Amino acid sequence: MKLHALKLFFVGRPIPTAQARHERLTKRSALAVFASDALSSVAYATEEILLVLVLAGVGALVVSIPIGIAISVLIAIVVSSYRQTIRAYPQGGGAYIVTKDNLGTMAGLIAGAALLIDYVLTVAVSVAAGIAALTSAFPALFAYRIWLGVLCIAAITTANLRGLRESGRLFAAPTYLFIVSFAGMLVYGFVRWMFGWETPAPPAPEVVAEGMQSVSVFLLLRAFASGCTALTGVEAVSDGVGAFKPNEARNARIVLVWLGAILITLFMGITFLAHHYGAVPRVEETVVSQLARRVFGGGLLYYEIQAVTMLILILAANTSFSDFPRLAFFLARDGFIPRQFGTRGDRLVFSNGILILGGLAALLIVIFGGDTHALIPLYAVGVFISFTLSQSSMVRHWLRVRGVGWGWRCALNGLGATVTGVVMIVIAATKFTHGAWLVVLLIPLLVAAFMTVHRHYADVAQQLSMEGYDPPPPIQNTVLVLVGDLHKGVEAALRYAQSISPSVKGVYVELDPEKTRRLEEKWGKWGLGIPLVVLNSPYRSLLGPFLDYLDHLLALGENHMVTIIIPEFIPSRWWQHLLHNQTALLVKGALLFRERVVVVDVPFHLKR
Amino acid sequence: MKLHALKLFFVGRPIPTAQARHERLTKRSALAVFASDALSSVAYATEEILLVLVLAGVGALVVSIPIGIAISVLIAIVVSSYRQTIRAYPQGGGAYIVTKDNLGTMAGLIAGAALLIDYVLTVAVSVAAGIAALTSAFPALFAYRIWLGVLCIAAITTANLRGLRESGRLFAAPTYLFIVSFAGMLVYGFVRWMFGWETPAPPAPEVVAEGMQSVSVFLLLRAFASGCTALTGVEAVSDGVGAFKPNEARNARIVLVWLGAILITLFMGITFLAHHYGAVPRVEETVVSQLARRVFGGGLLYYEIQAVTMLILILAANTSFSDFPRLAFFLARDGFIPRQFGTRGDRLVFSNGILILGGLAALLIVIFGGDTHALIPLYAVGVFISFTLSQSSMVRHWLRVRGVGWGWRCALNGLGATVTGVVMIVIAATKFTHGAWLVVLLIPLLVAAFMTVHRHYADVAQQLSMEGYDPPPPIQNTVLVLVGDLHKGVEAALRYAQSISPSVKGVYVELDPEKTRRLEEKWGKWGLGIPLVVLNSPYRSLLGPFLDYLDHLLALGENHMVTIIIPEFIPSRWWQHLLHNQTALLVKGALLFRERVVVVDVPFHLKR
Repeated sequence: MKLHALKLFFVGRPIPTAQARHERLTKRSALAVFASDALSSVAYATEEILLVLVLAGVGALVVSIPIGIAISVLIAIVVSSYRQTIRAYPQGGGAYIVTKDNLGTMAGLIAGAALLIDYVLTVAVSVAAGIAALTSAFPALFAYRIWLGVLCIAAITTANLRGLRESGRLFAAPTYLFIVSFAGMLVYGFVRWMFGWETPAPPAPEVVAEGMQSVSVFLLLRAFASGCTALTGVEAVSDGVGAFKPNEARNARIVLVWLGAILITLFMGITFLAHHYGAVPRVEETVVSQLARRVFGGGLLYYEIQAVTMLILILAANTSFSDFPRLAFFLARDGFIPRQFGTRGDRLVFSNGILILGGLAALLIVIFGGDTHALIPLYAVGVFISFTLSQSSMVRHWLRVRGVGWGWRCALNGLGATVTGVVMIVIAATKFTHGAWLVVLLIPLLVAAFMTVHRHYADVAQQLSMEGYDPPPPIQNTVLVLVGDLHKGVEAALRYAQSISPSVKGVYVELDPEKTRRLEEKWGKWGLGIPLVVLNSPYRSLLGPFLDYLDHLLALGENHMVTIIIPEFIPSRWWQHLLHNQTALLVKGALLFRERVVVVDVPFHLKR
Repeated sequence: MKLHALKLFFVGRPIPTAQARHERLTKRSALAVFASDALSSVAYATEEILLVLVLAGVGALVVSIPIGIAISVLIAIVVSSYRQTIRAYPQGGGAYIVTKDNLGTMAGLIAGAALLIDYVLTVAVSVAAGIAALTSAFPALFAYRIWLGVLCIAAITTANLRGLRESGRLFAAPTYLFIVSFAGMLVYGFVRWMFGWETPAPPAPEVVAEGMQSVSVFLLLRAFASGCTALTGVEAVSDGVGAFKPNEARNARIVLVWLGAILITLFMGITFLAHHYGAVPRVEETVVSQLARRVFGGGLLYYEIQAVTMLILILAANTSFSDFPRLAFFLARDGFIPRQFGTRGDRLVFSNGILILGGLAALLIVIFGGDTHALIPLYAVGVFISFTLSQSSMVRHWLRVRGVGWGWRCALNGLGATVTGVVMIVIAATKFTHGAWLVVLLIPLLVAAFMTVHRHYADVAQQLSMEGYDPPPPIQNTVLVLVGDLHKGVEAALRYAQSISPSVKGVYVELDPEKTRRLEEKWGKWGLGIPLVVLNSPYRSLLGPFLDYLDHLLALGENHMVTIIIPEFIPSRWWQHLLHNQTALLVKGALLFRERVVVVDVPFHLKR
């Protein structure tokens, strides 16, 4: 009951089914709702590029600018490609559904597995980066980053269990504040740089360390792969077309272009200025924090940038809390994961999906020490697998459906599929040893699990089906009351047994003939005329002789069942259970997997 | 099933009740069986005295000899006192029974609590001292002493679960070997000392350390208290009079005198020679080991002494494994501890008592780091409480019963009670801060627990008693089958329900009207003519509407009962349970404490 009160406090009262409703979003609200995931990645994407390049010395950091341009081109291609998806799936085309439709179940499951992993990582990476924004501003908190991250995930999980909705109202303020603040910082920073007002960069920490790498092709590819985290989240708009106001598809396409343009601008701006302001990756302070500190010279505006960065990262983590349970719902509906993910809880949300997501993300934060950089190599692989599968599906779609302009649309999706496919291979190859192997290994394992679950559900359905059901002969039910003594509890069980059968038997396992004699005496007086079967037990085992007797009864025929009634008195306090032999539990345990046996506890409630 | 095989391997096959037998012991065998506990204490008693005296410098160690003499006198008094107990209780007079008989239940329970603690400590102290004998001979093992101790306890526990008996055969060889070896060492050591062949003692490690204590009365009393551990176990003979060959009491009295004489000889011999051979307490080597090394100059005889010391200490630990379960049996029979301690297991032994004893002793070994000295302060208090209570009971006994020579017997027991009572206070006072407080605190707590358990059993017996039983009106049993769908599993439950009641109802909680329609269609076809009650659930809760309906049925009258049948399909593999909603569990959990409600699972076994 205390548990119930706790749940009420954190999760709130149940909400009736009738209150389920669907909000439709204007373009401006939709941008706020769907952009947070994609835009928040500019908080760490540049840093991830620099982190690889710095291995070849501070001099190599300038290469971040051409790499940034390459990634911007990639964003433009992916956005154009997803615009075609929106056209084809105006109800919303998540990678799992689109791929399953076009490339078959197996490919769909691969996309599903990649997405599930991706959602968990979105939460972990975004929260880790959000806490990094906080600890950059307040270095004293750096030591507590793991627990701050876990606390943050716990808060988001609780909010979602209460039924936080993706409402435009909630998202609009932080998202637009983020866009405006970052745009302001970039413009001001650019102006300072143009007019040479630049704050002098701190002395470059260049030490030509031994084992310093040269700028190899592999290093460039790795830097590029790291920067590709900037693309995570751009698919959100096409997943959520159904939430737009009509004309849904048209509005969604427009918002997607806005999103792409803002993303490229912010990402390129940060990459450009980070280089010119001499920001280099450091453990205790993020690149964005260094940039903001140098552009604004500390002060209130600096803290504002850190605050909105943290806020949008938390919003990004929050989007996974709708995406993951929704995907889990689809997978559960199709019978690939346990059914429990397909039912809504008290507050109309998919509580199981939310809890699992929160738990796994918190686990990742703890395992990876709350370090964004350690998590990044795992992150982008799943995203690009789902990009590639989703775009390839669209190629297949256009080839099959055709329609207006199908040729160039198909070509565009083909370009998208090819480019994202190549990037996926680059990411998997360059980051394999840094953690990507884990995802590469996990996806086939998840797919195998999906298939196993699916086969089990099919097996069960077939075994339970009433198809061709042939009514068996009526049941011959023998009712036994297992007794150790004759007291009020047993009397209650005997009376209950008589209420369900005219031919009840008492069964007693004899451990001590003297006790049997006393029981038989009582039985004559209070036994309600029920016959008493006494079984001998040479090894003092209660169960052995009883199981033998049971086998004998069940051997009478396939239509024979045995109901075993166990009188059980229920103590009024928990610790009192320890003072009584748990015979009922023992008997139930021994009979759990017996066919044609039903065990019935008849409780007798003690008052003290 | 694997668990069962494991048990079979370690514990062996069940033994039939008919094989229970009682061995009668000759005086020689009896000495072997009952002496190990008392004699083994010479392995550490001298060392404990020296350990206190050394606080006042090596010069103070000579005081060990008068202290040893005082303890020898104490042994003589206690032995004489217990000879009177044997006369009065020729069937065996354990402190619990004797005290309960003569001084009442409360005093008996205090003795019982003291004894239970004492038995646990006997195991822990003896095993720790036995391992110390081993690591003195092989110093490389010193680092593993905790785990060696735990392993040793596990082995003794297993042997006792198999039904190791206190057979004269098992005990005779090690006990007599111990007596002969130690006697040999003492004689040879005495001769060497007499003739001045003495091995030069190593340089005395005398450093007049700061904070060195002076030889105060308190220190002398503490040293005396520490040495009193030599007395632990002398009561064993009087507890086991019933095991002697006739004339039991006479034989037991003779054996007790032998035991006392041997104990005093060995203890005084070791104390005397330890001083003259310059043995001082050290962490890594016991005093007995130092003495043996110097007397024999190392070599085979030294290792033989260490081996028999370890062996007798393990035998001493082993005696607690019969004493503790036997006392627990008496306490359980009288309803002061859980009944489970009153039943014999497969192998005719009191398995629960053996397991608890082994577990607690192992815990003590781990907590106290396997260090004999750390455990000693806890040890002697309980022993002397039971001595005092037992001797006081005898005074009361003689006053009541009288008989031949009751006057001087009473005086002797009175002397015993007074002396042991004073020693008890000395021990509790001088060792209070070193750990004795724990025992002083634990005894009243245990007594309170005994009383609580006793009251509960009395309450239950009264509530269950058929005394004045007034048969209530016949039961009106409503049988409900809780359904979520209609498949073969539900069909089996419906057919079962019909076999126990002519008026069954199906109950369905509606979450989705569309599903209700489909169910009703199936129900018309396969529902066996059973009416279907559909309950509305605005909050998607399965339980809420059902509990309301249940309340309504139970409100019909005190003689109304409701049987709730839950169709449950049992998957063939454990992991498949995770793939199904645990509705049955949920419903059972919610109804567990409902009166007049019986929940019945009707299992349907899936084959794959």
